[in-house]
Amino acid sequence: MNEICVGLIGFGTVGSGVVKILQQNKEIIEARVGFPVKLKRIADLDVTTDRGVRVDPSVLTTDVRQVLEDPEISIVIELIGGIEPAKAFILDAFRSGKQVVTANKALLAEHGAEIFKAARQAGREIAFEAAVAGGIPILRALREGLVANRFGKVLAILNGTCNFILTAMDENPGIPFDDVLKQAQDRGYAEADPSLDIEGIDTAHKLVIILALTHGIRLPLARIYVEGINRMDPFDVEMAKEFSFKIKLLALIIQHGEQVEVRLHPTMIPRNHPLARVDGVFNGIYLRGDMVGDQLFYGRGAGKEPTASAVVGDVIELARNVIGGQVGRVPPLGYPQNRIDTGGVMDMQEVVTNYYLRVQALDRPGVLSRIAGIMADHSISIHSVIQKGRQQSGTVPVVFLTHNAREKDVQAAARKINDLDAVEGPPVIIRIEDESLD
Amino acid sequence: MNEICVGLIGFGTVGSGVVKILQQNKEIIEARVGFPVKLKRIADLDVTTDRGVRVDPSVLTTDVRQVLEDPEISIVIELIGGIEPAKAFILDAFRSGKQVVTANKALLAEHGAEIFKAARQAGREIAFEAAVAGGIPILRALREGLVANRFGKVLAILNGTCNFILTAMDENPGIPFDDVLKQAQDRGYAEADPSLDIEGIDTAHKLVIILALTHGIRLPLARIYVEGINRMDPFDVEMAKEFSFKIKLLALIIQHGEQVEVRLHPTMIPRNHPLARVDGVFNGIYLRGDMVGDQLFYGRGAGKEPTASAVVGDVIELARNVIGGQVGRVPPLGYPQNRIDTGGVMDMQEVVTNYYLRVQALDRPGVLSRIAGIMADHSISIHSVIQKGRQQSGTVPVVFLTHNAREKDVQAAARKINDLDAVEGPPVIIRIEDESLD
Repeated sequence: MNEICVGLIGFGTVGSGVVKILQQNKEIIEARVGFPVKLKRIADLDVTTDRGVRVDPSVLTTDVRQVLEDPEISIVIELIGGIEPAKAFILDAFRSGKQVVTANKALLAEHGAEIFKAARQAGREIAFEAAVAGGIPILRALREGLVANRFGKVLAILNGTCNFILTAMDENPGIPFDDVLKQAQDRGYAEADPSLDIEGIDTAHKLVIILALTHGIRLPLARIYVEGINRMDPFDVEMAKEFSFKIKLLALIIQHGEQVEVRLHPTMIPRNHPLARVDGVFNGIYLRGDMVGDQLFYGRGAGKEPTASAVVGDVIELARNVIGGQVGRVPPLGYPQNRIDTGGVMDMQEVVTNYYLRVQALDRPGVLSRIAGIMADHSISIHSVIQKGRQQSGTVPVVFLTHNAREKDVQAAARKINDLDAVEGPPVIIRIEDESLD
Repeated sequence: MNEICVGLIGFGTVGSGVVKILQQNKEIIEARVGFPVKLKRIADLDVTTDRGVRVDPSVLTTDVRQVLEDPEISIVIELIGGIEPAKAFILDAFRSGKQVVTANKALLAEHGAEIFKAARQAGREIAFEAAVAGGIPILRALREGLVANRFGKVLAILNGTCNFILTAMDENPGIPFDDVLKQAQDRGYAEADPSLDIEGIDTAHKLVIILALTHGIRLPLARIYVEGINRMDPFDVEMAKEFSFKIKLLALIIQHGEQVEVRLHPTMIPRNHPLARVDGVFNGIYLRGDMVGDQLFYGRGAGKEPTASAVVGDVIELARNVIGGQVGRVPPLGYPQNRIDTGGVMDMQEVVTNYYLRVQALDRPGVLSRIAGIMADHSISIHSVIQKGRQQSGTVPVVFLTHNAREKDVQAAARKINDLDAVEGPPVIIRIEDESLD
């Protein structure tokens, strides 16, 4: 019976999860796969800290060459994250004839072209299910099970930290963003420096990868409209509830004829939308295929074991290909390389959707009329408006929901509204995803 | 560039969906897969009826040999359903060196062993994603993405007809089962003879297939406890609501140490359970992996295009293997053949779960005490009880929810309760899946 030898670079949280799975589920994996998967070597700068798993000391090394240059190792797992030296290690692994598994979404989103090209030239594969939505096998679903579909819509909650924070704000009226962020940090759901998560960058990396699979488009991060949740005001969370919405940080891919919208921002969705039930640290991917209709994939998008589950699933996929002598069975981006382009993405300014606008206005006669007039001048049709009661002093919130409106019109109207003397600060704009408002 | 030729046997609803997808999404499939998939021949007894898709007449034939014996055809799609002649055609296809795609759950559940053996002996593959949950790529997820997990729990809604009926009963208080069934028939969601669906047989076929993938157990249908929805009383649907439950026809696989529960019956689940939101004709598979945690897969489990989407996904999977010269990359049942057994399945009588019991009793002093006494005698601990108001004459319903109780004790108690003079008819028993009651 063949045996597949694996080398691991990076013995952190997910790395120790991989070790745990390969030990704890060794027998069932061998039963299902038909051959054993042996973790031959683990490279990390720190080989002394206890990771809660027992490893034969001879398996550990501080010298990454012992993974990259071991001829018995056919699959290398890269779990150190970041751009360098992860990228150099992966390219070296290809050069040494190894297959690669990674969970490194930033590296793939930013240097995917180079890495996939290197894999192809070396006749090797790279698998990266763990890079998106942790344990949810969504990339496989897009590349294989749903491969016969055109994807008209993908709406995805891809960051557990943001979803934990937004869920907590929804469940605890009035609680400030910073307090919830602190809770998330205390519970280990947010990093000490949470900016990658709350500013939407982590989600954007995943969006880049999903878009490559659904549309064969490789879009630079800089061309994506990205808005995080770091300015979320509890008042807008409460207003969302009044309109039966919930706010989620969504990655959106929406096909319009020949063009596709790609954007990422806090989004109001109806409370009865399947994604509205994806709460806490869970992830969810809602998609619409032209043949398959609506689907939802729900599960844990991060964490030691869920992410490691996806890594080991990829190891087994590549192992099956190695055993069968087949490489590149499924193109890494779901499209053969030469089909990838960057065309057809709609300019954010041209996007048409529904909007929530909150204006802080002085409670004076004529103010509402002037705001509404500006909106009319910009071809923005108002679906509903709520003005919240008179205050002793200062401003009152006036909230508008719009019918379909164009982003550039809404932004222009917001600037005009902000110029009014009776208005304090720029309007809060939150996009709405609700087909019933169209 | 290679071209893969496909032959289709069975030009019915799903068959015409396959033709539609291969025509309508020809370009995107070719872009993603890297080679064209050509439907060379369609065999059906009826080659004249208009199926709403345009097909070159030379492609159509009434002679199945023209599919099975064409050396250019490498993949045969079997969509005629039923046991024979589907089985003979599939075995013939293997003998002629062809790969096979099927959606035939009954055939796989009842004759899977013979078919998989024939495939192995011929060095060919059979793919069957469309046999379970239509367009939801759940089998692939179990065999590949989640392959590193032990599955502690699988709860699945796998029959759209039953789910449509149960959803309508939940939404329309008091509406009788037969009326909703008629609605489902009028809307094309139920067959003229609905027994395969409403008696649970269709779901059982799918359960057999899922169990083989999750546990490597091939269980004969006769060894599974199967209870359909055909005796569902609107009163119990309403009572379920009072307890914040929803009734779903669930296929259940639950691991207990070395043993596994396999059963299929109407089940009360909490209304905030992810599966409680799977309504109408949709399917949902909720599972718990030891590493990946809880996941939900949601989508259309039947219908022309969703099922055809899964069929074409399978065609592409096999085409990729054919192009790469690799066969049997993933064992058809997720386990190499020799690991399949029928052991470790818990006897239904030994199952321990929570129960809803409704007893129709004369409203007389001492009756409740005697019923409760019988339950105590059988070690059944009562969680809550509701006795619905006094009636003018006849019986009143007395409803019990139990803590964990053993099936054989509940059945024995039900027989004793039925023997009471003050009780009319056998108690209605509906099992509950609610971890908070354990």
